[in-house]
Amino acid sequence: MKRIYIKDLAVNGEETVLLKGWVHKIRDLSHVSFILLRDKSGIIQLVCTKEQIKGLRLENAIEVKGVVHANEKAPKGIEVEVTAIEVAGKVFYDKLPFEIQSYKEKATLETQLDYRTISLRIPKKKAIFRVQNEIETAFRAFFKSNYFEEIHTPKITHSGTEGGSEVFTVNYFNRRAFLSQSPQFWKQMMVGAGFERVFEVGYAYRAELHNTWRHLNEYVSLDVEMGFIKDETDLMNIEEKFLNYLYKYLKETCSEELRLFNVELPDELKIPRIPLAEAQEILLKEFNKKSPVGNIDNEGEALFHKYIKEKYNTDFVFLTEYPSAKRPMYAMECEDNAEITNSFDLIFKGVEITTGGQRIHDYEVLKAKMERLGIKVEDFDFYLDTFKYGMPPHGGFAIGLERITMQILNLGNIREAALFPRDMKRLTP
Amino acid sequence: MKRIYIKDLAVNGEETVLLKGWVHKIRDLSHVSFILLRDKSGIIQLVCTKEQIKGLRLENAIEVKGVVHANEKAPKGIEVEVTAIEVAGKVFYDKLPFEIQSYKEKATLETQLDYRTISLRIPKKKAIFRVQNEIETAFRAFFKSNYFEEIHTPKITHSGTEGGSEVFTVNYFNRRAFLSQSPQFWKQMMVGAGFERVFEVGYAYRAELHNTWRHLNEYVSLDVEMGFIKDETDLMNIEEKFLNYLYKYLKETCSEELRLFNVELPDELKIPRIPLAEAQEILLKEFNKKSPVGNIDNEGEALFHKYIKEKYNTDFVFLTEYPSAKRPMYAMECEDNAEITNSFDLIFKGVEITTGGQRIHDYEVLKAKMERLGIKVEDFDFYLDTFKYGMPPHGGFAIGLERITMQILNLGNIREAALFPRDMKRLTP
Repeated sequence: MKRIYIKDLAVNGEETVLLKGWVHKIRDLSHVSFILLRDKSGIIQLVCTKEQIKGLRLENAIEVKGVVHANEKAPKGIEVEVTAIEVAGKVFYDKLPFEIQSYKEKATLETQLDYRTISLRIPKKKAIFRVQNEIETAFRAFFKSNYFEEIHTPKITHSGTEGGSEVFTVNYFNRRAFLSQSPQFWKQMMVGAGFERVFEVGYAYRAELHNTWRHLNEYVSLDVEMGFIKDETDLMNIEEKFLNYLYKYLKETCSEELRLFNVELPDELKIPRIPLAEAQEILLKEFNKKSPVGNIDNEGEALFHKYIKEKYNTDFVFLTEYPSAKRPMYAMECEDNAEITNSFDLIFKGVEITTGGQRIHDYEVLKAKMERLGIKVEDFDFYLDTFKYGMPPHGGFAIGLERITMQILNLGNIREAALFPRDMKRLTP
Repeated sequence: MKRIYIKDLAVNGEETVLLKGWVHKIRDLSHVSFILLRDKSGIIQLVCTKEQIKGLRLENAIEVKGVVHANEKAPKGIEVEVTAIEVAGKVFYDKLPFEIQSYKEKATLETQLDYRTISLRIPKKKAIFRVQNEIETAFRAFFKSNYFEEIHTPKITHSGTEGGSEVFTVNYFNRRAFLSQSPQFWKQMMVGAGFERVFEVGYAYRAELHNTWRHLNEYVSLDVEMGFIKDETDLMNIEEKFLNYLYKYLKETCSEELRLFNVELPDELKIPRIPLAEAQEILLKEFNKKSPVGNIDNEGEALFHKYIKEKYNTDFVFLTEYPSAKRPMYAMECEDNAEITNSFDLIFKGVEITTGGQRIHDYEVLKAKMERLGIKVEDFDFYLDTFKYGMPPHGGFAIGLERITMQILNLGNIREAALFPRDMKRLTP
């Protein structure tokens, strides 16, 4: 007998169906017993005899045979009258670490993460990853349809990507190696290698010495790099187009999940583009909020979101024209002002989800800038070499997968959007 | 003017088109000059004046305006008469490290990998990754259509997955951590978490102390794990179904690339399943080849391929029933013989590309086995915990992405199938 998923159940006469899943809830009344059975597709009510539920406990994995009946009183209007139950997965606990069937956020996030494979059984927790999955699917579909190719670049590297100390070291056959902070160099090199337009879905590693609600030390980066661009506006254009595609796609594929989180997505996104210096002035004028030199801090981002929301009725804003001093060495400087770069951040509900920009593509310009900044050029020969053989104008950006998931669903902590988050303290499960 | 890709070029009257790409070849005749222009989609002949090609060198990135004409003598029957050329990416070399336009494997593999972004410009080298891309696409499409969900599991872990010494260590905030050798534990846990059917496309790390043609220290693993199975035959069935899907898909999407490598894929795969002990006997009888206890060595695999090819006319064979002593602690033992496991390897043209099998799902059985094997159980609580809450019968397998690419295209060295391979000696580019 072929197993059927709960989502596909329908009244079909007296035909017996085979279901497989977990015991979500047991209701043992005087004359009849009910089980809510949960599988990966949904939850259904089973009607059982006392005999059938004997010894069953919450979260037992079971295989069930039965007949589908209409019942207006049952959730979703159908239920399954059970003819046989078999335990497929035993349980070995005294007490569940927290309730699954009627979860009300009583357990702390830390406890939920300690028992990650239990908290993921809570339908609302699982829904986060349905949405995340569709974000990734949309990303892949959109960029493939725009003739980008997927690549896999190395995560073990012989030098830190962006320099700085926030990098994990690896013992690589008794050599000191590093975990890649970003596919930056390699995605640029792949543009130069003639792939022109590439994207990557892969882990990035940041050894940042702070535990916050918006940082993970291992996160999935949705990276894009594009050759033969005019300037950074091409990049903002394509990211804006992608976000419009994404919202439309999520509405089609995740309507139920979005409803669970009370999220309503707008039909069209038009993202304002505001130079950083202008945004800093607005913050000062509107909120009396001072910003650090060449940047906006977390509080400023949140305030600026408020301003943007009121003025433009959108959750997104591109901040542009970051100063050279605050951007990596490969950032392309403006033609008429070398203090400013052709770069941008994308702020979504007050949180940065993207950094992007045009890169320097001229070998001599890049080398000279590295020397000016005191960077040991020979450490980066593996990267610079490509620039000797016809590197076209190019640029790109990256979207943090967990961040965009968190912000779309208003989660409040980025750990909710990682199956098995890694932070300064957490290395398990 | 909108840029057009070479693959989309067609004669369209006197309309000017805009092309972007690299100078693949220059032919400067007495009365006329030709350029072969290469972009990510193909190669086209440009007809230029002497003036236009002045100063141009091989591999310059250029932007070209021109008009498409039919010309029977041109490759593919069309050419572009150039009206304007602009250099978009300069070159800074004395001599190319090796020829790109008429590449004849003169450079060693090491040199090709040293100049990876140059060797990837060679159309036949790039074609490898078109095929690899489509393998990954087919993998995702097939398993999604069978209701598997994509997951991302952590690559920084607090214990080596399979034990053993072949694991890279990471300094994780002054704690000793490891790079994941496989998503094994986490994909099993995700089955238990109610996702039931999961897959992952992600890096796996093996600190193996040998440099061979078929090992990488960082490779992409296509992992599958599936709940509510009967036994390992369910797994072999679905892998066989996938491979049939894959071959059909590659024929449709990569016919040109397969032709470049002289590869012809059969219309249907029927994969024989032979117990390991029987295969060892055959090797002894047919080739007088002795095998190590509980395994077949590389030479044996190659000989057995020869035998299978002759007898069954296929490149694939499942070897089944590996002894418990040679499989990891989580391998499910046969009901009627605990010396044997419900496991398999898939050998493709004499090279193992998959290890798989059913796993133990009973908490007490697994714990007892770990204790019997002298494994420190408390180190694996993060894994074992899930087994307390209704773990259904389950199993899975993994396919090495670079390995299957290498074997389909008969590459001879797995490094050819990685954009930026990592081995004992190579950490760059």
